Amino acid sequence: MPNIADAILTGDTADLYFHRTREILRREGLDPVVTMEIFPSRDGILCGIHEVTRLLAAVLPHDAQVWMLPEGAPMRAKEIVLRIRARYSTFGLYETAILGMLASSSGWATAAHRIVQAAQPVPVISFGARHVHPNVAAQMEYAAIIGGCSTCATPAGARLAGKQPTGTMPHAMILIFGDTVRAVQAFDKWMPPDVNRIALVDTFRDEAEEALRVAQALGDRLWGVRLDTPSERGRVTPDLVKEVRARLDQAGFPHVKIFVSGGVDLERIELFKREGAPVDGYGVGSAISGAPPIDFTGDLKEIEGKPIAKRGRIPGITPNDRLQKWERA
Amino acid sequence: MPNIADAILTGDTADLYFHRTREILRREGLDPVVTMEIFPSRDGILCGIHEVTRLLAAVLPHDAQVWMLPEGAPMRAKEIVLRIRARYSTFGLYETAILGMLASSSGWATAAHRIVQAAQPVPVISFGARHVHPNVAAQMEYAAIIGGCSTCATPAGARLAGKQPTGTMPHAMILIFGDTVRAVQAFDKWMPPDVNRIALVDTFRDEAEEALRVAQALGDRLWGVRLDTPSERGRVTPDLVKEVRARLDQAGFPHVKIFVSGGVDLERIELFKREGAPVDGYGVGSAISGAPPIDFTGDLKEIEGKPIAKRGRIPGITPNDRLQKWERA
Amino acid sequence: MPNIADAILTGDTADLYFHRTREILRREGLDPVVTMEIFPSRDGILCGIHEVTRLLAAVLPHDAQVWMLPEGAPMRAKEIVLRIRARYSTFGLYETAILGMLASSSGWATAAHRIVQAAQPVPVISFGARHVHPNVAAQMEYAAIIGGCSTCATPAGARLAGKQPTGTMPHAMILIFGDTVRAVQAFDKWMPPDVNRIALVDTFRDEAEEALRVAQALGDRLWGVRLDTPSERGRVTPDLVKEVRARLDQAGFPHVKIFVSGGVDLERIELFKREGAPVDGYGVGSAISGAPPIDFTGDLKEIEGKPIAKRGRIPGITPNDRLQKWERA
Amino acid sequence: MPNIADAILTGDTADLYFHRTREILRREGLDPVVTMEIFPSRDGILCGIHEVTRLLAAVLPHDAQVWMLPEGAPMRAKEIVLRIRARYSTFGLYETAILGMLASSSGWATAAHRIVQAAQPVPVISFGARHVHPNVAAQMEYAAIIGGCSTCATPAGARLAGKQPTGTMPHAMILIFGDTVRAVQAFDKWMPPDVNRIALVDTFRDEAEEALRVAQALGDRLWGVRLDTPSERGRVTPDLVKEVRARLDQAGFPHVKIFVSGGVDLERIELFKREGAPVDGYGVGSAISGAPPIDFTGDLKEIEGKPIAKRGRIPGITPNDRLQKWERA
Amino acid sequence: MPNIADAILTGDTADLYFHRTREILRREGLDPVVTMEIFPSRDGILCGIHEVTRLLAAVLPHDAQVWMLPEGAPMRAKEIVLRIRARYSTFGLYETAILGMLASSSGWATAAHRIVQAAQPVPVISFGARHVHPNVAAQMEYAAIIGGCSTCATPAGARLAGKQPTGTMPHAMILIFGDTVRAVQAFDKWMPPDVNRIALVDTFRDEAEEALRVAQALGDRLWGVRLDTPSERGRVTPDLVKEVRARLDQAGFPHVKIFVSGGVDLERIELFKREGAPVDGYGVGSAISGAPPIDFTGDLKEIEGKPIAKRGRIPGITPNDRLQKWERA
Amino acid sequence: MPNIADAILTGDTADLYFHRTREILRREGLDPVVTMEIFPSRDGILCGIHEVTRLLAAVLPHDAQVWMLPEGAPMRAKEIVLRIRARYSTFGLYETAILGMLASSSGWATAAHRIVQAAQPVPVISFGARHVHPNVAAQMEYAAIIGGCSTCATPAGARLAGKQPTGTMPHAMILIFGDTVRAVQAFDKWMPPDVNRIALVDTFRDEAEEALRVAQALGDRLWGVRLDTPSERGRVTPDLVKEVRARLDQAGFPHVKIFVSGGVDLERIELFKREGAPVDGYGVGSAISGAPPIDFTGDLKEIEGKPIAKRGRIPGITPNDRLQKWERA
Repeated sequence: MPNIADAILTGDTADLYFHRTREILRREGLDPVVTMEIFPSRDGILCGIHEVTRLLAAVLPHDAQVWMLPEGAPMRAKEIVLRIRARYSTFGLYETAILGMLASSSGWATAAHRIVQAAQPVPVISFGARHVHPNVAAQMEYAAIIGGCSTCATPAGARLAGKQPTGTMPHAMILIFGDTVRAVQAFDKWMPPDVNRIALVDTFRDEAEEALRVAQALGDRLWGVRLDTPSERGRVTPDLVKEVRARLDQAGFPHVKIFVSGGVDLERIELFKREGAPVDGYGVGSAISGAPPIDFTGDLKEIEGKPIAKRGRIPGITPNDRLQKWERA
Repeated sequence: MPNIADAILTGDTADLYFHRTREILRREGLDPVVTMEIFPSRDGILCGIHEVTRLLAAVLPHDAQVWMLPEGAPMRAKEIVLRIRARYSTFGLYETAILGMLASSSGWATAAHRIVQAAQPVPVISFGARHVHPNVAAQMEYAAIIGGCSTCATPAGARLAGKQPTGTMPHAMILIFGDTVRAVQAFDKWMPPDVNRIALVDTFRDEAEEALRVAQALGDRLWGVRLDTPSERGRVTPDLVKEVRARLDQAGFPHVKIFVSGGVDLERIELFKREGAPVDGYGVGSAISGAPPIDFTGDLKEIEGKPIAKRGRIPGITPNDRLQKWERA
Repeated sequence: MPNIADAILTGDTADLYFHRTREILRREGLDPVVTMEIFPSRDGILCGIHEVTRLLAAVLPHDAQVWMLPEGAPMRAKEIVLRIRARYSTFGLYETAILGMLASSSGWATAAHRIVQAAQPVPVISFGARHVHPNVAAQMEYAAIIGGCSTCATPAGARLAGKQPTGTMPHAMILIFGDTVRAVQAFDKWMPPDVNRIALVDTFRDEAEEALRVAQALGDRLWGVRLDTPSERGRVTPDLVKEVRARLDQAGFPHVKIFVSGGVDLERIELFKREGAPVDGYGVGSAISGAPPIDFTGDLKEIEGKPIAKRGRIPGITPNDRLQKWERA
Repeated sequence: MPNIADAILTGDTADLYFHRTREILRREGLDPVVTMEIFPSRDGILCGIHEVTRLLAAVLPHDAQVWMLPEGAPMRAKEIVLRIRARYSTFGLYETAILGMLASSSGWATAAHRIVQAAQPVPVISFGARHVHPNVAAQMEYAAIIGGCSTCATPAGARLAGKQPTGTMPHAMILIFGDTVRAVQAFDKWMPPDVNRIALVDTFRDEAEEALRVAQALGDRLWGVRLDTPSERGRVTPDLVKEVRARLDQAGFPHVKIFVSGGVDLERIELFKREGAPVDGYGVGSAISGAPPIDFTGDLKEIEGKPIAKRGRIPGITPNDRLQKWERA
Repeated sequence: MPNIADAILTGDTADLYFHRTREILRREGLDPVVTMEIFPSRDGILCGIHEVTRLLAAVLPHDAQVWMLPEGAPMRAKEIVLRIRARYSTFGLYETAILGMLASSSGWATAAHRIVQAAQPVPVISFGARHVHPNVAAQMEYAAIIGGCSTCATPAGARLAGKQPTGTMPHAMILIFGDTVRAVQAFDKWMPPDVNRIALVDTFRDEAEEALRVAQALGDRLWGVRLDTPSERGRVTPDLVKEVRARLDQAGFPHVKIFVSGGVDLERIELFKREGAPVDGYGVGSAISGAPPIDFTGDLKEIEGKPIAKRGRIPGITPNDRLQKWERA
Repeated sequence: MPNIADAILTGDTADLYFHRTREILRREGLDPVVTMEIFPSRDGILCGIHEVTRLLAAVLPHDAQVWMLPEGAPMRAKEIVLRIRARYSTFGLYETAILGMLASSSGWATAAHRIVQAAQPVPVISFGARHVHPNVAAQMEYAAIIGGCSTCATPAGARLAGKQPTGTMPHAMILIFGDTVRAVQAFDKWMPPDVNRIALVDTFRDEAEEALRVAQALGDRLWGVRLDTPSERGRVTPDLVKEVRARLDQAGFPHVKIFVSGGVDLERIELFKREGAPVDGYGVGSAISGAPPIDFTGDLKEIEGKPIAKRGRIPGITPNDRLQKWERA
């Protein structure tokens, strides 16, 4: 697991007013034991709590108490997912970072969860690293797997989640070889035997035609084809999948699987399912990586054991039987 | 400027298939000069190109050629914003990172731009670090400033954009002091004179009542009040701002400014403007930080000077007079 | 029960053409026994039939026959709710008045019925006298009670319906005392013991703060608080009710009830119920008092025992088993 | 003008809490001079202010001050239409009555205004007494005339507004005579010469056929016909008016006017205008009488000359140059 | 049954490119046995297959094989309804004609089917010949009967479907006689006894009045009345049917049926049913005759026994158990 | 021009009641000179009046008078487009045929007109014969040309309109040849030189690839390509047209035109125009052939010179300056 970045530990990414608050309380000699509760603004899948734990382990004293829901747990709007009881000076500065870790990761995991539910039993792979900043690409792919994806395309993300990354081949490679079959044959020649041979079949010619050409060239060694038809050509349609399936079967290649990528989202997967398209796997990009974060809020609910709250909130801790006491490793 | 992370330079956050492509082409002895063009999927404000430049400076050989639009430029859907001409082996692995840097940052800058346009001449400050992962919090705040925000709340983001961060005080500080006036007085006592005194006035009592209490306590030293009424109490409304303004004026505090935060977004700002609410500044959080990334795509358009393209795209480079040739520093 | 106004008995509020008709028929020596049937244009709750009865008792000869549905009965569009058989000269002039008595009252009762159904088991009180002409305020409140309201705010309306009126205190009283607690204490001091002490708690300070203050001041003698937050402050929200409930309970005042008023209508009550807000009573104003009247129509269906009708209607009486023969008191 | 009813003067139609307030203030010896301002919730035509004046004249002491907009004035949402400065004890009890007098009348006048605007230059007559309680029938018809109607059908309403009432004949009279021509001849025989002869022509036969029959029977003495086709027969349509006009003209009766009634509302009048139907007058019923009241609100804004307001309102009087100082007659 | 028109057999109505194809294939000496399959673009009722059979009988050699669904069968979108296996030269030219025969007729039959379903058990008669070109009037009426209509108005259409045509009388006849009763009496005098006497009752006077007049004139010989009120008079309404029924029953003519025509369509029939109007038969015109055709497509799926298809279709025949082998008469 | 069919002249396609009317009038010895006026139910392009003229020329006596709008004239709803004055017996029977001739043809011409307006200056060709009954295919194509189409696909339709038909090649021919280039070469070899060589390029391979292949095979003799991508492959998109245009231009074939067919309708053409797709011609099928007919109505308006009308219509002729007196050839 990567360490917590220095900029986070120094509070450089914290909102300025937390710095000021720490300074003022220090000068006033105020440092009560407080209880903070954190909750999401909408329903979803909690993700990022592992990373929060690593941050808390680095900053909290040993007498601090923490309760939380486990990574990947479903959560309801306004349900308490994390409760911290410690002196304010030990963690007040990290409120911004804690909320931010949960916000993005839970947003991605929640989107992935909905898509995986819609697609099942067909597996979904996260392909969206190209749509987020590389500083969080690994976290995004990890969250997608927490949300239910089988695995992802980047080594960094797969390592975080304890999975093997996966991938096929980019259009660039086929363009450089100048022919799909030549590119696939080179792939087959140089890749280790445990890498599945999956041919991208929409670069130069009609998808069904290319699918048959690569199947004839590789025979039993071809594991599958990937359809990624661009929107300029009408995207991958359920009928295209059916036709490629039928043509592969008629030509004696029933073992060749069909993977679909390119603008795949919830609506698209529901369409493929409704129309009975024989898809063997989906690659999903911005429908997961571009999911909106889920906003989290942290509220002080007790000060030195006394219930308190700002206007609009109910003073005192909010009971939640699902919370688990955190034990430091 | 922070350096490009090692995980990016080693390709750890790249899609697996780029690793495989690099390996296969190396074994086949293929390494042509290629031209890649990169374009967004929708209109917006380009952001992240500075960071891309730093990555390219670290990896490209000196005979490589690069053209780009400047940071902060408006861009149209499918317009070429970046063109790279170099041997494929020198940059093919970084396609994921380049696209990702542009995707998130341009999404944030574009959202900020729309909100700032709607609010002007009233300034907007980015407050959303708590809603994104801290690994990209600085980039998000930087992008918000590129999109037009006056400044932001985190030191890291403000430093990236060459600005001073800003902030008021959190509810936690007021809760710990147990009274808004006491907290504001402590803030006034300990903060350096160049920090504006802005009191958060919705924690314990009615906003108008608290605004008058802090104005009477600090007199001319009070620079402004911040209204952050939670949704449980109906959020900040245009009428509330008008009333607080009127009560402050009637009590002899016309110099005290009014800042509005809490769920502020495009629709909300348009409502405040339409109703003529006398707002002096907005703090905007998830309406910027939660903006969806803008997907970018990279296409090979020439190989060894010959136009090429995959199906669905037009072979050869796409002219764009607005592109500027990149000169290495 | 008030007497039928002279202006009605003299026909001063009758349409002019009924006067002319009476004059012409008299001069022609025509005065047949006719049967008139009256029906509503839409479904609802019949109200006003008591008042019609009083009018008929004052004008009809003893051999006249009348059938009707009882006050408060549900009725269907076009269902006959009243049938009068008498010489035309004895009641023709009162058609305008009879239809009008039923129109407004049935409109109010129908609206009240829907609101009461939505709110149950929480009681609803009619507060809308300020929204109708005082000449009909009593009838409106009476109709609201026929439709299911527990009682109403005006003595005149309550008397008509045989109920005790109810009420709390207006904003004006609190403004004059200058402080909610002082006003409530004065109320408590001077009101007879059987009047429930209900404090209005949104005049000067935050609702939750005021609720606690009046609870502390009156202790067990406080029966409830009324929330009437204006729209400028976001109206009463379900979360506000929950918070006030929690703060009262935490402070040891679980016996204090919470009443909600201010723009309460069908949608609002459904929202409170859906969100589980612990409301103990609703005060409803213009959602009842502003209900559109239900138009009624009167048709001659027999003349001297012979079926007749104008074009568009079916000649002869329309059977309705639910009608009851009217017996004069 | 009728006197203010005793039940209003005694406060019998006032909300109970005003009684209590009066009692309490009296016992406390509190009776400040207060300023109350009254404003509507939406745009419209102010009506009822004459009646309010009569009430105020009966209850206010001579040193009271009152400002108001004149009867029939257009008013904007939240514009102050009435301001009363006097000891609270002298008028606090009448708040319910004042608001109610304005609410219904302004609602009717506003609806009438819109309909009259749409119909002009064709005159509109108020026919809706049958759709409201007879106790308010005269006020409704008066308000309709304030809103722009030429006159109305009830003597009481017309007298209030200083107009002559108008009318034709009911279906009942024709049904009793058994033939439209016979009824019209009787009407012609017995009515004074200054009453316009307008025949209702949809009772027994086709409207065009009856129109010609009555025109032939009365010749030059026929002033007009009224079309009132019921919805069971498709209502009066623009084409029917055109056809009746054409048939009357072809038969030599161009002087006979055509009046339209029966479900006439704003949309219907716009339809007739758009289609160019040659209508000479409209009778409008529930589209005016069933108009929703306009809610009015009264706020105390000064007590003993000092600005004050409840939360959500701005303390002190709200300037309005259009207000006129009331001089007692 | 009429013969297939010469212009069809000569291919004069065929798309030009089929001519060219035939010519080119002939010159190339190419004439394989091909299998063509034909399917509709949406669900509906198949109609026109009889006529297609007559065309095929005229052109196909005896060794050709044909499978089809029967006339009037329900069919699903994309279901194969016709399969032809023969040398291409023998039927390729007729693809346009075959598809066209099915397109219009199936469109009409499908619309009729929906209307008949909605109306049942009340019978529906096709009246729409006036809304289509007379060259196809007979096919349209035939298709309407295949779709479920009881019969139709034109002798040509009825003959095609083996039915007796039906009809009443046009407005023109009544206008010429100058009186409905006179026209009906003439009809009764001259028509053979087996023709039902159905009077059109909306020409000169009110429908109910005329219905009674013709019933009194013809007595038991009157079979029914037809209501055809034009839109200028509000069309036939459910209430009009109820009233005419009631007036006929009250006058002793319960045996007289009521037929409704004039703008009758699916929505209208559903309205009549919902309102319980006692209709004895509907005459439907443009709701059937103006139905959009159902597009059919013909695909070659085998050539000399080998599966084939154009892109987008699956090669080889598509199984359909419902197809019946065609046996030449 | 084809002759009017016997079935029309004998009245076999007339509504039965016209036969009966004729019979009855004859027996009564009634045969007045009548004036019938015919008008459409909605705005559009008049078509079919030539054919009506031929029918009238065959049946009317020489003293009959006829006025009409010319073929192709724009017409307004309810505008008189045809007026016939003659003895009823000479044309009463043909009312069904006359209305039907105008209904379908005007529907088609009106739809074509809208599509041609949207496409201009790009020409539109009618391809829809396959979607209507072959008995009316020629009239449909003729009407499409009256509405503005350049020409059509069937010889019969083109002949009616005095045009040359046009066409390319069907998928069937290419499937039989087994290769697009072979089929196109055969076409080129055998077709006369004045036939444009237009290759259909979506049968076996990617459209852009096939377009280049046929261009290379035929060189300057290739006039154009036709894109007809089926919906299973996303239909023809604006981007596909742009790409094929770019690839043809890059390969040195700027002279090759691009024609688009397959589900082309008004919305689709507007999309192509909005996106700037370089289309050289559209083939439109069911968007014209499936257009709903425009209903026409015929009314008797004079009998022996005396104004008359049925209920709902205004007696006497309706003036229309645009009508032209018909002079027999």
